[in-house]
Amino acid sequence: MYKMVEDSRAVQKQLQVIMSKYSTLTINPNRLIDAIHSTAKWGAKGVWGPKPTDTGVCRLALSDFDKQVRDWFIGELGLLKCQIKIDQMGNIFGIYPGKNPGLPTGIGSHLDTQPNGGRYDGIYGVLSGLEVLKTFQDNNYVPNYPIAVVNWTNEEGARFPQSIISSSVWAGLVPLQHGLNLKSLDDIPVTLGDELVRIGYNGTTPASYKENPLAAHFEIHIEQGPVLQNEQKEIGVVTGVQAYEWNRVTIKGQSAHAGTTPMNTRSDALQIASMCILKGIEIANAHGGCCTVGTLSLEPSSVNVIPHLVSFTYDVRHPDSEVVKAIVKESKTEFEKIAIRGIGSPLAKLLAVEWELMQTSPTVKFNETCVSTVKQAASDIFPGKFREIVSGAGHDSVSTSYVCPTSMIFIPSRDGLSHTPEEYSTPEQISNGFQVLLKTIMAYDEKRANNEI
Amino acid sequence: MYKMVEDSRAVQKQLQVIMSKYSTLTINPNRLIDAIHSTAKWGAKGVWGPKPTDTGVCRLALSDFDKQVRDWFIGELGLLKCQIKIDQMGNIFGIYPGKNPGLPTGIGSHLDTQPNGGRYDGIYGVLSGLEVLKTFQDNNYVPNYPIAVVNWTNEEGARFPQSIISSSVWAGLVPLQHGLNLKSLDDIPVTLGDELVRIGYNGTTPASYKENPLAAHFEIHIEQGPVLQNEQKEIGVVTGVQAYEWNRVTIKGQSAHAGTTPMNTRSDALQIASMCILKGIEIANAHGGCCTVGTLSLEPSSVNVIPHLVSFTYDVRHPDSEVVKAIVKESKTEFEKIAIRGIGSPLAKLLAVEWELMQTSPTVKFNETCVSTVKQAASDIFPGKFREIVSGAGHDSVSTSYVCPTSMIFIPSRDGLSHTPEEYSTPEQISNGFQVLLKTIMAYDEKRANNEI
Repeated sequence: MYKMVEDSRAVQKQLQVIMSKYSTLTINPNRLIDAIHSTAKWGAKGVWGPKPTDTGVCRLALSDFDKQVRDWFIGELGLLKCQIKIDQMGNIFGIYPGKNPGLPTGIGSHLDTQPNGGRYDGIYGVLSGLEVLKTFQDNNYVPNYPIAVVNWTNEEGARFPQSIISSSVWAGLVPLQHGLNLKSLDDIPVTLGDELVRIGYNGTTPASYKENPLAAHFEIHIEQGPVLQNEQKEIGVVTGVQAYEWNRVTIKGQSAHAGTTPMNTRSDALQIASMCILKGIEIANAHGGCCTVGTLSLEPSSVNVIPHLVSFTYDVRHPDSEVVKAIVKESKTEFEKIAIRGIGSPLAKLLAVEWELMQTSPTVKFNETCVSTVKQAASDIFPGKFREIVSGAGHDSVSTSYVCPTSMIFIPSRDGLSHTPEEYSTPEQISNGFQVLLKTIMAYDEKRANNEI
Repeated sequence: MYKMVEDSRAVQKQLQVIMSKYSTLTINPNRLIDAIHSTAKWGAKGVWGPKPTDTGVCRLALSDFDKQVRDWFIGELGLLKCQIKIDQMGNIFGIYPGKNPGLPTGIGSHLDTQPNGGRYDGIYGVLSGLEVLKTFQDNNYVPNYPIAVVNWTNEEGARFPQSIISSSVWAGLVPLQHGLNLKSLDDIPVTLGDELVRIGYNGTTPASYKENPLAAHFEIHIEQGPVLQNEQKEIGVVTGVQAYEWNRVTIKGQSAHAGTTPMNTRSDALQIASMCILKGIEIANAHGGCCTVGTLSLEPSSVNVIPHLVSFTYDVRHPDSEVVKAIVKESKTEFEKIAIRGIGSPLAKLLAVEWELMQTSPTVKFNETCVSTVKQAASDIFPGKFREIVSGAGHDSVSTSYVCPTSMIFIPSRDGLSHTPEEYSTPEQISNGFQVLLKTIMAYDEKRANNEI
């Protein structure tokens, strides 16, 4: 499925780009994709194709591989003569000076990955930020205000099981000590704080937006869904993040021997769970939302024993928090009905359904100025090839949006795949997104200088 | 729910029982239930009620508890002046002499339990056999031919994962070395052969029906299903064991992010699995059979990732092997249709269904003479309170039926429960079944003496 047009060399024609009302910057067409591929050596895993770059990445937060990519990142920031701050959560801020003092405009994402992750999720955002600074340096361009590139620690929540934890601490949403005390999912668990010390990234800058603030936060990311690809759009102008709620649903029935228990006397918890799962999908569809059962366990888990207990997670999402609540409410009613109706036989015992709220996140709406700046940049460079989009996944930008103007830019993900080695965006798509980011950052910086914000 | 009528003392009125055309034997009404409860101390586990006898039993094959109950059993056989044989699989044969030489008529079952087992499954059969011999001794009754009580090793397959393994080796259905090499499911696995040596039950009698034959094999057992209770019958005359087939069904879809993947683009393996599970139940019901999904696992098993792989076991049963085949065949066709139809959206990838045959067991029909002997005994003692029944579960009698005349007797199981501490039959039911067994053994012995067989 590899097409020649996808080769990064094909974008060389776009060497000169008019980047703003005021400046024309020359971009280096291959350096960003080369950085993505060269840094993938720190944790390369999961071969999916014949080319050397056809692997995913396993770079768990604060692992040795994470230390290696962090060390490289610090080195690059040094070459750019950035001021480097490492905070108490190991978040790295590389601050490129501007003409004027003032809060830095941030470009952030994360360098850690899922255990079976790809080359782009998070990494693309940090390295694009770095490429913005390199492009400034190449062109001797000095922004009006400082620009900070940020690497947020443990965004994935894959090693330390709480996603966007370090941007959340920075935004004052989670106490520092909670973050530092998070225990890893390693065979021999260690704390996030201990691992920061071990790899030398226990910084002294307060992990706080109050003491280490940003003027704004922009993040470029792969979509991780199929919408842009299916609609043949190049750029997603992210207006916010959809609401979600996670519940654990437990169905309680009655164990019995698979060989000796007639069908009409069974209280089979898995039969009821199957009915609930399908009903949930029906309800989510009717509301235009999503629901996902991603984990399911049963007891006693023996080939010839009817399960008496099935427990599954139920992830419900919609751009509107109220619709999420409505889907969950209707699911509770309908699952209860299914359990009470049971298998429709008076010989079967009634089953019970229990709900446990795991996590909830309301709708996030990004800052209007930030969104309109991204939209203008996309419209200028890719007229007709962009669309507004609501992020289905959480990102560090959710944390930052609570304390500073924030928005995001998406590029297409091949087949919508993510969190798998096959995660892929073409070099052209990588470059397209970068150009929109570069233009956005310059435009936002100009708006600040012109007191338009 | 404890009723006074269930107290074993209530059966004292039945002290004198006419047991055959020729003999009247006095039975000891409480000794059997007392033996069941007193031997439960070796592995008592799982309190379900207020009385000291309201626990289950965890007595895994060849564990220290199994050694203790075996040692006690050997002692009892010694008091009965039985010849004791221990074979290479640790099967124990206690042979009570008859008037004439000849092959012993066997009464067998097992003293091992499930990890969360009850007090009756298997144990009832072995201790009832012992009680038959004790009743003979009490009454100075000498049978025409020897009577053997047999404890088969590892019937449950709970510790060494192959059920009815030792009766299968004895019946020549499985090679001896395969049985001895079975690895336990302990944290540190050990072989069945090593554990036999450790607890001193590595006997020298060949584990072979050819070198250590039985004239017949009778087994009394709890039903483990609700049929007798629901129909208010006291005795099940077991005519055979239903056929079954175990398959592992794997649904292959596509993982994707729960937040970013629209419902109409998903290839959700769990959604398809849920549809297959419900369709399977529909198909089994239509054929008058049973199907059970007792285990299910999914990948990647993350709250916010759509599962790309779901694997479940599919246990199908019916008294007729041909109907089992028909249910499996129809399920294969229908599951395939469900997977191909998918979620009904052209944006979703097709899913695949794979089947792997795990185990199959054809219909077992017990020996007509054995069955009619049981039926006559049941009819004599409990007229109108018995019914013919097909066993839903496998038993050691399945193995013996291939090499000697065999049949079984069932008593009711409260609510059909088994393989759980709540497994329960009343002392009266325990005694009822024993009386039918005693009469059956005497009648069969007399038929042998009268050359009616």
